[in-house]
Amino acid sequence: MMIPYKQQTLPIEKVFRDPVHNYIHVQHQVILDLINSKEVQRLRRIKQLGTSSFTFHGAEHSRFSHSLGVYEITRRICDIFERNYSLDKVGIGGWNDQERLVALCAALLHDVGHGPYSHTFEHIFHTNHEAITVEIITSPETEVYQILNQVEVGFPEKVASVITKTYPNPQVVQMISSQIDADRMDYLLRDAYYTGTEYGTFDLTRILRVIRPYEGGIAFAMNGMHAVEDYIVSRYQMYVQVYFHPVSRGMEVILEHLLNRAHELYQEDSELFDSNAQLLLPFLKESFTLDEYLKLDDGVLGTYFTQWTEENDPVLSDLAKRFLNRKPLKSATFSGKEDQLIIKKLQQLVEKVGYNPRYYTAINSSYDLPYDFYRPEQGSHRTQIEIVKKDGTLIELSQVSQLVSALAGQQQGDERFYFPKEMVDPTLRNHYDLFEETYQEFSQYIRNGALVNAQS
Amino acid sequence: MMIPYKQQTLPIEKVFRDPVHNYIHVQHQVILDLINSKEVQRLRRIKQLGTSSFTFHGAEHSRFSHSLGVYEITRRICDIFERNYSLDKVGIGGWNDQERLVALCAALLHDVGHGPYSHTFEHIFHTNHEAITVEIITSPETEVYQILNQVEVGFPEKVASVITKTYPNPQVVQMISSQIDADRMDYLLRDAYYTGTEYGTFDLTRILRVIRPYEGGIAFAMNGMHAVEDYIVSRYQMYVQVYFHPVSRGMEVILEHLLNRAHELYQEDSELFDSNAQLLLPFLKESFTLDEYLKLDDGVLGTYFTQWTEENDPVLSDLAKRFLNRKPLKSATFSGKEDQLIIKKLQQLVEKVGYNPRYYTAINSSYDLPYDFYRPEQGSHRTQIEIVKKDGTLIELSQVSQLVSALAGQQQGDERFYFPKEMVDPTLRNHYDLFEETYQEFSQYIRNGALVNAQS
Amino acid sequence: MMIPYKQQTLPIEKVFRDPVHNYIHVQHQVILDLINSKEVQRLRRIKQLGTSSFTFHGAEHSRFSHSLGVYEITRRICDIFERNYSLDKVGIGGWNDQERLVALCAALLHDVGHGPYSHTFEHIFHTNHEAITVEIITSPETEVYQILNQVEVGFPEKVASVITKTYPNPQVVQMISSQIDADRMDYLLRDAYYTGTEYGTFDLTRILRVIRPYEGGIAFAMNGMHAVEDYIVSRYQMYVQVYFHPVSRGMEVILEHLLNRAHELYQEDSELFDSNAQLLLPFLKESFTLDEYLKLDDGVLGTYFTQWTEENDPVLSDLAKRFLNRKPLKSATFSGKEDQLIIKKLQQLVEKVGYNPRYYTAINSSYDLPYDFYRPEQGSHRTQIEIVKKDGTLIELSQVSQLVSALAGQQQGDERFYFPKEMVDPTLRNHYDLFEETYQEFSQYIRNGALVNAQS
Amino acid sequence: MMIPYKQQTLPIEKVFRDPVHNYIHVQHQVILDLINSKEVQRLRRIKQLGTSSFTFHGAEHSRFSHSLGVYEITRRICDIFERNYSLDKVGIGGWNDQERLVALCAALLHDVGHGPYSHTFEHIFHTNHEAITVEIITSPETEVYQILNQVEVGFPEKVASVITKTYPNPQVVQMISSQIDADRMDYLLRDAYYTGTEYGTFDLTRILRVIRPYEGGIAFAMNGMHAVEDYIVSRYQMYVQVYFHPVSRGMEVILEHLLNRAHELYQEDSELFDSNAQLLLPFLKESFTLDEYLKLDDGVLGTYFTQWTEENDPVLSDLAKRFLNRKPLKSATFSGKEDQLIIKKLQQLVEKVGYNPRYYTAINSSYDLPYDFYRPEQGSHRTQIEIVKKDGTLIELSQVSQLVSALAGQQQGDERFYFPKEMVDPTLRNHYDLFEETYQEFSQYIRNGALVNAQS
Repeated sequence: MMIPYKQQTLPIEKVFRDPVHNYIHVQHQVILDLINSKEVQRLRRIKQLGTSSFTFHGAEHSRFSHSLGVYEITRRICDIFERNYSLDKVGIGGWNDQERLVALCAALLHDVGHGPYSHTFEHIFHTNHEAITVEIITSPETEVYQILNQVEVGFPEKVASVITKTYPNPQVVQMISSQIDADRMDYLLRDAYYTGTEYGTFDLTRILRVIRPYEGGIAFAMNGMHAVEDYIVSRYQMYVQVYFHPVSRGMEVILEHLLNRAHELYQEDSELFDSNAQLLLPFLKESFTLDEYLKLDDGVLGTYFTQWTEENDPVLSDLAKRFLNRKPLKSATFSGKEDQLIIKKLQQLVEKVGYNPRYYTAINSSYDLPYDFYRPEQGSHRTQIEIVKKDGTLIELSQVSQLVSALAGQQQGDERFYFPKEMVDPTLRNHYDLFEETYQEFSQYIRNGALVNAQS
Repeated sequence: MMIPYKQQTLPIEKVFRDPVHNYIHVQHQVILDLINSKEVQRLRRIKQLGTSSFTFHGAEHSRFSHSLGVYEITRRICDIFERNYSLDKVGIGGWNDQERLVALCAALLHDVGHGPYSHTFEHIFHTNHEAITVEIITSPETEVYQILNQVEVGFPEKVASVITKTYPNPQVVQMISSQIDADRMDYLLRDAYYTGTEYGTFDLTRILRVIRPYEGGIAFAMNGMHAVEDYIVSRYQMYVQVYFHPVSRGMEVILEHLLNRAHELYQEDSELFDSNAQLLLPFLKESFTLDEYLKLDDGVLGTYFTQWTEENDPVLSDLAKRFLNRKPLKSATFSGKEDQLIIKKLQQLVEKVGYNPRYYTAINSSYDLPYDFYRPEQGSHRTQIEIVKKDGTLIELSQVSQLVSALAGQQQGDERFYFPKEMVDPTLRNHYDLFEETYQEFSQYIRNGALVNAQS
Repeated sequence: MMIPYKQQTLPIEKVFRDPVHNYIHVQHQVILDLINSKEVQRLRRIKQLGTSSFTFHGAEHSRFSHSLGVYEITRRICDIFERNYSLDKVGIGGWNDQERLVALCAALLHDVGHGPYSHTFEHIFHTNHEAITVEIITSPETEVYQILNQVEVGFPEKVASVITKTYPNPQVVQMISSQIDADRMDYLLRDAYYTGTEYGTFDLTRILRVIRPYEGGIAFAMNGMHAVEDYIVSRYQMYVQVYFHPVSRGMEVILEHLLNRAHELYQEDSELFDSNAQLLLPFLKESFTLDEYLKLDDGVLGTYFTQWTEENDPVLSDLAKRFLNRKPLKSATFSGKEDQLIIKKLQQLVEKVGYNPRYYTAINSSYDLPYDFYRPEQGSHRTQIEIVKKDGTLIELSQVSQLVSALAGQQQGDERFYFPKEMVDPTLRNHYDLFEETYQEFSQYIRNGALVNAQS
Repeated sequence: MMIPYKQQTLPIEKVFRDPVHNYIHVQHQVILDLINSKEVQRLRRIKQLGTSSFTFHGAEHSRFSHSLGVYEITRRICDIFERNYSLDKVGIGGWNDQERLVALCAALLHDVGHGPYSHTFEHIFHTNHEAITVEIITSPETEVYQILNQVEVGFPEKVASVITKTYPNPQVVQMISSQIDADRMDYLLRDAYYTGTEYGTFDLTRILRVIRPYEGGIAFAMNGMHAVEDYIVSRYQMYVQVYFHPVSRGMEVILEHLLNRAHELYQEDSELFDSNAQLLLPFLKESFTLDEYLKLDDGVLGTYFTQWTEENDPVLSDLAKRFLNRKPLKSATFSGKEDQLIIKKLQQLVEKVGYNPRYYTAINSSYDLPYDFYRPEQGSHRTQIEIVKKDGTLIELSQVSQLVSALAGQQQGDERFYFPKEMVDPTLRNHYDLFEETYQEFSQYIRNGALVNAQS
């Protein structure tokens, strides 16, 4: 008799050495097959942190590693739930281990739709990695779909519904997507490991000791409150120190201007990129198939940027060089409306020395980045963190932790004006420069890294 | 008065966060400029471990990170030498800190000539990364040269001579290139960190405590003998466990056959790659400039492989898919001449089921890999490890360490025959396959991962 | 010519392997001699964390290890100050390296007057470890004094004045005693390492990168603000999780009652302890010499406790057993005056089942413990943490960090009522117990670990 | 219905934070009760490494921590065996989980009979910690016995038979006592952690992945051979670097002479120690009960040594001071018979300057220490390490590992002659010393830390 694919476990558990979790343990044939699918393997060619590796040189890890990590944390949570909080032990609110496979698949695949430098790319070309994730999972032509569909009819859609948060079991949904989910726990630990910062390091073992299912999802035991606090602080530190780093954003601004310039040039001359951006063409014309999307990766963009360094358009070739050779725009913080006039003035000065401000200045706000702090009051799209008191009732974390309450109430991040470093750094300019006065004027508007009124 | 460039130190030391060394400390303007040069930045786009990241998914770090690490270890050695063993303290055999800058530059640049998957690429296209390193350092058109040449006339050549080991001061040469040099120490620690193995971890702090200069180069104090032993054992473990891993070699074999096939096809039809391998053309025609070489990186190869998956040539497109989607050839060990007949037989069987053995089988020996064990008796190109006894005389390490003596005498590594996994794994074949008998026959020749005589 | 003792450095720097700082580096003969003095060696026999090791079994490290650690951090701060902020580089507010030796000696000796379980012992016997530290440093009969006095006349008094914070250079004083001093930095890291918690782990390397001297003491660069924040959070976590742990306090309460009982019994019969507490006699009669004090250590108390387990007085022998065999009193939190009545009631019930509440109950407040949070508004005895802005002006940390501001404003810690565990744990009682009803009544007053009104 | 004690598991698993294993997990009431027994708690007062903490100041951990660690590793092995190699899965040679409790108890209790500085103490007073371990487990008056006896009649004897290796199931015996047992694995990792050396660090996770039961005991899968190699190398490094450290042995020699001197003095005058070594009296008279033995600990010895510093016997008081204040004897290596004459000469010189060589010199061989290397050829009392080949047959480790073969064949350790440091260190002598010539003569016999013929 054949064992149904769904239940096929490997004769001997397979492991992948992982620097963050020590080992990734694979027990199901389905999971092994998904890992070996071409759509998942493609994630090896897409960096997890995009332009952050220009600031933290160690952080060159891929979305592939992260996906394995999210899978592994989910697997460990399932193990704990099954051992201590199974339905038959606990009754209502307990864990039903029949849900394990759908949870594991969703964990492994949650980022499978990401493309190169997603945040910026999506902005310019109007793609959407979440929609594509769902498409990869549910389109009959993908290997991922074919594997999932062997499990049972409708299984791909089930997995996709976890991603879209419409899956009926909130425990499964919250494992993959909530304030303390496998996704965030892996990326904080992994990004901390690879950047070499210690801020992101929280005590995963301890969190896993106090995590538990309840009817409405996932909660944490009161005696683990400090472990959860520690996680929130780590997250805060990683955002402020790593994800919002002004230099990484200075590279992202260049990437955005570069792709934007290419997009504009294509609209002027649709044959311009025939020989030096072939795989990008569907996106330049804003009409692409899933198969075309799956051909993109960091290396593809990099290859075209290399070719563009020799293009005639001076903006395109200069921005391509700045990106490849890591020449970020420099920045100063600003705040409020009164600084808008200064920004306008500075843009004029940038133009005066010969740079088109459209491509050589930018306003960038860390609030636009795809990271959010824990803000329980804005209960909109992310769940709250629930703490289980000794008598079994729940209470939202910031109600019991003044530390978290303080962080949750804070406005984090900043807004920055970006401009060419030459404007303020004489060593990058020629000794005899016609615009010396303009540079001097520009510099007067910046003090201690912030815009100031030059008169003051 | 202008401070000579050579002596320009940064007003405040600049640091780069590094997961292996905690911080990379930069004190000279020259070093900062070199790091920011485009030739060095290019190393961000070339993986340190090539196909090993297919086996150890965490090991996605670049040659850029490694270059910073080698620089940092060299800097620390210089600090120690200057503090404890300066020429004026120690006399003959002491360290002359005037050598510091040449040592630091050579350390940072020692791998600057590497291209994508160097080992394989060089094999097919007859490039040579060491020669190109020297060329980058000494060619007036590179940014690296221009920076070095500001230090003083002839300085680029000085730095290059450290790489070629013709620099007169053996201490400087051995810092960069000897049995325990900054290069190896960084790559062992870094590769261990990123693969997540603990084998490569030796006690760098302790090694640095016992390293010292002498007239003939660099030696180690007797009381640190066990730290040096530990380093040798770590190195052995990393070679056996990581660098010689059969799966990584199974991917390298595919890469080699793929590039080889492209090379052959180009010779048949020189226009075939005009639109899908533009930056590779100079190498296909085996005539390239330095500028063309510097345009290559891992992503460029990957982009063309993606395009080749849709080429007409079935071998080219199939091998490209196998590489991108990580489908390594499988292998079995063999030894000696008697197995040559078996290999011939197996190649016939592979051919019988439809694979051209030229592209789907291979013989791969770990001895060909660019890693060497410590073999003091073969005093040829690498130096010996010298231990300083209490009375100041030197003795070669394996004379005092039985552990090292045992490892040094051993023949490490293995020879493997590679073939398509389908030959032995029925789950990869169709249920009804015409060649079932051939597969059966093939399988008889392999037992416990080694070739055996089918009759036996 | 003789080199003055003050300037005698070791021909080769001596190191001690240390799990927290990797190596402790000793460069001065004075420091090596102090470490080898009998007063410092005595610290090996006194646990750093007292009764906390009953909760965290790994935390068995001594005040000796901690003293070396404080010395090492101070040494590193001096190195940084000398390299980057020396008087001749920086002018006023710079570091005068002539201060190094006095700083190092004070760091090493800052805890030399501690006795066994100081906090409790001092409470009962009215000793004072700070006064004794000064006495050890300045009394001609100690080895410590004799070593310091060789440096120069008046040097012991100089070192002592750093301890008493009357030394004129505030940089030296603040190295040893301020909100972020070498003392706290070492104990947080060391206690975290030995307990195995990760909360106390902050980034020492980063703190040392941003620490700097100024005229009024020691400050931190603005760009290191987050490292300082992280330190404050670690400290908070260690207090709440480790130092205030209710079980450790439950052991401390037993120790206090035990010593108190011995004290009382001695007052009744001064010959009682002649043969089983010889070295304690001077303290029981509250008249002791320095020499007698220096004979005390954890093992001496433990030895007498072992002997007391066979004494006739049932309270003395029972409490001694409870301490040696780790039977802590249990506790419940309470707050405010309204709980005083409940406590009175509970003490009556404890008495009813046969325990004298004087020895078997206690009120213990974490506020009495020798740890203080960062409370800048109470600028009394500890300094504030000053941050140096880019323009060189100073600002107090909680003014720029909402996280610290939140923690600084919080009331931490708790008050607890301690009682015999038997009162609430039936497994510790006989099956048939006359007082079952009393136990039941007692239990009604405790819910979720806190006192409650039984009626409610 | 009552659940039998044997099967009582805790409603919620209890954990102890442990720096080496992260958490110690306790699931059985029996284990929790054993940990809380007074005989096990006593181990908190006995250092794991004895005099080694005088050399490695961080290594102050107790036998209590180690006992918990051995328990935890055993628990993990049982979990793995139960999950993957249970009797019903594997058949003969599989693991019977009924054996778990006896294995866990034996693991926790394997060292419960240790006293203070066992190795030396036993030598002088003819106690035997293994016999006492058995006695504690099987004597009705101990708490340990009473707990074990509740499990089932005869259970204490069963546990004891694991310690004495007469228990019929070799898997259980080898978990606690074999070449790679839970005992050694814990002490190597723990001693490495606490000393701060990195040598002892091997990959426990990987070892646990490849460990498996077979009919004759415990073996390791071939694909984990390198993990086992690594363990053997770590063990070698720890012996050579930590356990055989000459300074620790120099302290042990002093301890031995001190206890020996006390023993002799007692034989001369049996009342001498009435008031300053009460708990030691039974041992001085060589007639002690188990209860008396259980009163001993490191602190008891230390207390008496403190009292002895003021005794009249100059040897007793001087050696006590040397021990408390860490003044080790110094040493030189020697080898073979020809050095016996030199030693005799040196002893005469030591005597000439006033030291009795019986108490101030010693011959100490690392071969006498209770650590043994892996020596498969001496298959006597310890088992061999068996590797499971792919076809299921076993092969002894050194047959497949040249590294291990090299280490196994080596003669490790050394023999040393110990003498007062004053003999060779002028800074410890008076400026004007009558015996200067004798010291000079003495010094001629020592070169590079070894005895040499003075004439040569």
